[in-house]
Amino acid sequence: MAADLTRSVAGGAPWLLLEHSTSGVNWQPRNPAKAPGQMARNSLAHVARGSDGAMFFQWRQSRRGAEKFHSAMLPHGGTDTRVWREVTELGAAVETLSEIRGTRTEADVAVLWDWHSWWAQNLDWRPSGDHDARERADAFYEALYDRHLTVDFAHPEADLSRYPLVVVPALYLMTEAAGNNLKAYVENGGTLVVSYFSGIVDEHDAVHEGAYPGPLRDVLGLTVEEFSPLLPGERVRVTGPDGSELGADVWTEFVVPRGAETVWTYGDGLTAGHPAVTRHRLGEGTAWYVSTRLGVDGLDALLGWAIEDARLAPRADLPRDVEVVRRTGESGTYLFAVNHTGSDAKVPLETPGTELLTGERAAGRLAVPAGTVRVVRLDG
Amino acid sequence: MAADLTRSVAGGAPWLLLEHSTSGVNWQPRNPAKAPGQMARNSLAHVARGSDGAMFFQWRQSRRGAEKFHSAMLPHGGTDTRVWREVTELGAAVETLSEIRGTRTEADVAVLWDWHSWWAQNLDWRPSGDHDARERADAFYEALYDRHLTVDFAHPEADLSRYPLVVVPALYLMTEAAGNNLKAYVENGGTLVVSYFSGIVDEHDAVHEGAYPGPLRDVLGLTVEEFSPLLPGERVRVTGPDGSELGADVWTEFVVPRGAETVWTYGDGLTAGHPAVTRHRLGEGTAWYVSTRLGVDGLDALLGWAIEDARLAPRADLPRDVEVVRRTGESGTYLFAVNHTGSDAKVPLETPGTELLTGERAAGRLAVPAGTVRVVRLDG
Amino acid sequence: MAADLTRSVAGGAPWLLLEHSTSGVNWQPRNPAKAPGQMARNSLAHVARGSDGAMFFQWRQSRRGAEKFHSAMLPHGGTDTRVWREVTELGAAVETLSEIRGTRTEADVAVLWDWHSWWAQNLDWRPSGDHDARERADAFYEALYDRHLTVDFAHPEADLSRYPLVVVPALYLMTEAAGNNLKAYVENGGTLVVSYFSGIVDEHDAVHEGAYPGPLRDVLGLTVEEFSPLLPGERVRVTGPDGSELGADVWTEFVVPRGAETVWTYGDGLTAGHPAVTRHRLGEGTAWYVSTRLGVDGLDALLGWAIEDARLAPRADLPRDVEVVRRTGESGTYLFAVNHTGSDAKVPLETPGTELLTGERAAGRLAVPAGTVRVVRLDG
Repeated sequence: MAADLTRSVAGGAPWLLLEHSTSGVNWQPRNPAKAPGQMARNSLAHVARGSDGAMFFQWRQSRRGAEKFHSAMLPHGGTDTRVWREVTELGAAVETLSEIRGTRTEADVAVLWDWHSWWAQNLDWRPSGDHDARERADAFYEALYDRHLTVDFAHPEADLSRYPLVVVPALYLMTEAAGNNLKAYVENGGTLVVSYFSGIVDEHDAVHEGAYPGPLRDVLGLTVEEFSPLLPGERVRVTGPDGSELGADVWTEFVVPRGAETVWTYGDGLTAGHPAVTRHRLGEGTAWYVSTRLGVDGLDALLGWAIEDARLAPRADLPRDVEVVRRTGESGTYLFAVNHTGSDAKVPLETPGTELLTGERAAGRLAVPAGTVRVVRLDG
Repeated sequence: MAADLTRSVAGGAPWLLLEHSTSGVNWQPRNPAKAPGQMARNSLAHVARGSDGAMFFQWRQSRRGAEKFHSAMLPHGGTDTRVWREVTELGAAVETLSEIRGTRTEADVAVLWDWHSWWAQNLDWRPSGDHDARERADAFYEALYDRHLTVDFAHPEADLSRYPLVVVPALYLMTEAAGNNLKAYVENGGTLVVSYFSGIVDEHDAVHEGAYPGPLRDVLGLTVEEFSPLLPGERVRVTGPDGSELGADVWTEFVVPRGAETVWTYGDGLTAGHPAVTRHRLGEGTAWYVSTRLGVDGLDALLGWAIEDARLAPRADLPRDVEVVRRTGESGTYLFAVNHTGSDAKVPLETPGTELLTGERAAGRLAVPAGTVRVVRLDG
Repeated sequence: MAADLTRSVAGGAPWLLLEHSTSGVNWQPRNPAKAPGQMARNSLAHVARGSDGAMFFQWRQSRRGAEKFHSAMLPHGGTDTRVWREVTELGAAVETLSEIRGTRTEADVAVLWDWHSWWAQNLDWRPSGDHDARERADAFYEALYDRHLTVDFAHPEADLSRYPLVVVPALYLMTEAAGNNLKAYVENGGTLVVSYFSGIVDEHDAVHEGAYPGPLRDVLGLTVEEFSPLLPGERVRVTGPDGSELGADVWTEFVVPRGAETVWTYGDGLTAGHPAVTRHRLGEGTAWYVSTRLGVDGLDALLGWAIEDARLAPRADLPRDVEVVRRTGESGTYLFAVNHTGSDAKVPLETPGTELLTGERAAGRLAVPAGTVRVVRLDG
C-alpha cells in the first residue's frame, strides 16, 4: 500500500525506495528479525509497484548512538552472517532486472485519497473517536489486495474515467467540484463505492448546506439524517439480499433513500430496519453507499457486487498473499509474481515469456516457489 | 441523580434545565444518537424532579467550529427529520403541564453530600486509589432509585429530622458538629446508614484525634482499628445473619464493636471473622455501618433492613426503571410516571386524577405505555 | 533480594534497615494492611540477611499531611491495637538476638550486578521494549531463592573465585576486563550462567567490535549473529536433551556455536532448529548461555544442570518460602529459619544449638511453626 501511494503521489512515474531495512529496525516497541528471504521478497514487491530499485538504511551497522541496533547491509557480525549473504544475493538479482527501469505499474482500481480530508478527520469533537480514516483506507485496500486488484490512489477531482471502479473510504472533507466529478464519473458508466462519513464538510471544514452528504446526495441517491456511532464492543448485524448476515461495528447511520435501493439492512441496534448498504443506478453507472464499518467478510461481499457492476474480469484463482502485478513500457510488459506464503504457487500466464531472475522460459502456469519472486518479460 | 442534586443545591426550590441535548452530543469518545422518544422522556424526568422546563443546546446545528456535530433542535438535515418532529411534539406536550410550574418535588430519603469532603478524597496518598467517593454516592443512589425512593441531598450539618432515613456514602471529611448532628438525629428516632471512610478527617484534612471514625464513634458504637484495601481483582465474601453470602471488593476494615452488634461478618481475606456490617441501637433510632464496598445485591439487602428500621412504607410493586415522583404545591399534587423500559407498565394511584398530557381521567392503575411519560393531577 | 543487594553494596558488612513499615504504606495504588505476624517475620528476614536491626517509619502516625495514612509504630488508634502489640513484641524479640550484631551472612552464589549496565538498558531504541534487565535479575534471583541458595551481588570485575556458581542476568554493558575476569573464573573451575543481551556494549555504550557478545565470545564459545525479539503474546518452545519442552518468550537469538555444545534447541519460531541454551567446557570450568527468556520452570531446569556442574550440595528437602540463612562471626554461627508459609515446617540442623527467641535447645529437625521465625546459635 505504501508503494502504491508513493507511485500515485508521483503521478504514476517510477520512483525509488530510499530506505529499506535488511532485517529488524530499532524504532518499534519490539523489533523482530526478518525471516530468510523476506528482505528480497519485500524489496522486489516494491519494484513491482514502480520502484526502480531498493536502497537500505544503513550500509555498515554503527557501533554507537541511537541507531546502533537498526539492521544494516553489513551487520555487527560482519560478512559471515545470513544478512550479508542475502544482501549480496539481492544485489545480483536486481542486476538481471535492469531493463524494467522506467516502465510503469498498471492499476485496476482507483481509491480516492486526499491529505486534507485525512488531517481534518484527526481534529477533535468528531461523532466517534473510534472512527479512523486511515483504518478504513487500509481495510478497503486490503479487500482489494485480497482480490488481486492493483490500486492507484487518486485525488477526488482527478480524471477517473480510465478506472472501471472507484472506491471512496471516509472522504469526510470533499469539495462541490469533487462531488460533481464523481457524479459525472458514474453517469458516464463508472462504478463508485462510498463509505460512511464522506462528503460531510467543504474545504473550510464547514458542513455542506442541507442534509448529509452534501455533494454526494445526488450521485448516491440518498440523505443521511443522523449519525449514530456505536459504543466499544457494540456490534450490529446487517442482513443481505439473500438473507445472509454480516457483522459491523463502530458506526451506524439513519439513511433515507431518495432514489437508491436498499441492498443490506440493519438487523439490530438503534438503526434496525433502516438501510445499511444501498445501490443507486445513475446514467450508465452505479453508486454504492455503505453506512457502517463492515469487517473483512462484509467488505469482500460488497466488493464482489461492485466488481460485477464494474465488469472487472475476475482474477484467475490465486492464493491469498501471492501478489501479481504488471509493469509495462517501451522495453516490454513484465509480470511480477511475489509469493509471500509458505507453499509453492502457480500463476497463470496469458502469454509465454522469459523469467528474468532464472533466465528460464515460462509458459502456461508459472511456478513460484514458497517465499520467492518471479519476474516474467512477456513475449509480444 | 443530577436533577435531585441540582434541586437540593437550590434548597428544594424549582429550577431550570438549561442545556439538554436533543440527540447525540459531541464531547464523548463516542456519541450515539438518542432512541425515538428518549429526548421527551428524559426531559420530563427532569421536570418530575423539579425543573420548570427543558431548554436545549443548540437551536440550529452550526455548520462550523468545534460544536458542529452536537445535536440541535434544528439539525443539519432540516425540518424533515425525526429530531425536529420530536422537538415540536415535546413543545406541545410541556404546554399542557404549565400549571405544575412552581410546585416542589417530595423526597423520601436524605443522602449526605458535601463538596469539601468530595474534593478532599481526590487528594493523593489515600489508602486506596480504587476508592472513589462519587462511585459510592452513585451506588447508594442507584440502590435507592431501584426501590423507587426519591432522594434529597443534604448537608451533614443540616436539620435532618424530617427524613426517616439518612444515608452517608464515604463522607471522609466531617466536622465534630456534623457528628453531633447525626448522633442527635439517631437518638431522636432516625435511621442512619454510614459507609466506610467516613468521619476520618476534620475540616482541615487533619485526622480526628483517637480511633477512627472520630465524630462517628459514638453514634455507630464502634472503632475502626485499621483500613485494609484490597488489590485489583481481589474479592471477599461477607456472611449475613441468615447465612447468605454477599460479594464485596476494594475496601475492608478491622472494625471493633463498642456497643454495636455485628450483622454481617467477613468470610475470608485478611479481615475474616471480623465484623463487616454492624447495627447500633441508640436512643430511639438505629445506626448502621458498612465497612466494605458491597455490590448491587449487598446494598439492596442492607437497605432492606434499614428501610424496615426506618418504617418507610415499601412501594407497591413497580418494575425497575419506572420512575414515580411527586411534585406538590398550591396548584395541586402531581404524580409523574416515567417508563424507561420497553414494556407497558401499570402504576397504582391512591387517588383518581386527570392525566395532563392526554387529558384523560385516570384511576386505580395508571397505564404507562413503553417508553412514555404520564403526569396525573391527583384529585383532592 | 533488597536485603542481599544492600549487604552486597556494603561489601558484605552488616547494615541497618532504616525505614520499614509496621503495616500498610501510603504510596502504593492500594495499600493493604500486613497480616498478623508479617511485620516481625519480614523484619527478622532482613536481620538474617545482614541487617543489625529493624527501624520503622514512623513512630507516631501523623494527623496531617501526605503521610498521615502511612502505618506507624503507634497508630491513630493508639495502644489498644494489634499493630502496637506486635511492635512491642518485636522489640522484646530482637533483644534476645543482640549477640548476632556484627556477624556476616554466608552466600552460596554470586549474581553479577552493575548499575551502569542497568541504566544503559533503560535507554531508548533497544531491540525490544519488553526486555527488562531488572526482571531478569528478579527471575534468576527467585529461581535461586526457590532452591534455598543465598545470593551475593557482585561487580563484574570483582574476585569471584570463592563462589562455585556465578549467574549473569542481562549484563548488556560489560568491559573487556569483566570478560577476561569471567574467562579466568571459568578456566579455574568456576561455573558460569549467562543470560541473553550480555556483553553487548563497552563502558561508553559502544558495541564491542566483532560479533556479539564481544568480551564473552571466548568464555561462552559462541557468537550471536542476530537478535530476534518476539511480539506480545508470542511464545516459543525450547526442547531439552531428554525431549522435554519448556516455554519462553520476549527474546530469541540466532546463536552460532563456536566450541559450545547445544543443550536446548528452539522448537519453533524464526529461530526453530537453532541453539537456545548452550554449554561450553573451558579449562576446569563450564560456561552456560541462555539466549531466550525462560519462565520459572525453564530457569529451574537450567539451574539444576548448572548446580550440578558447580558441585553445589543440594539443600535438604525444604518447602518453598521457608528461608534458611546463616550469619557467622566471632560470637558464633547462627541459622535463621523464616517460615513464610501457612504450614508448620521442619528445618534440618547439622549441629545442635540453642534457639534464641524461645531459649530452648534444638537438635535434629527444628520445628518452625507457620508464619514464625526461629534463630539457632549452633554449638561449636
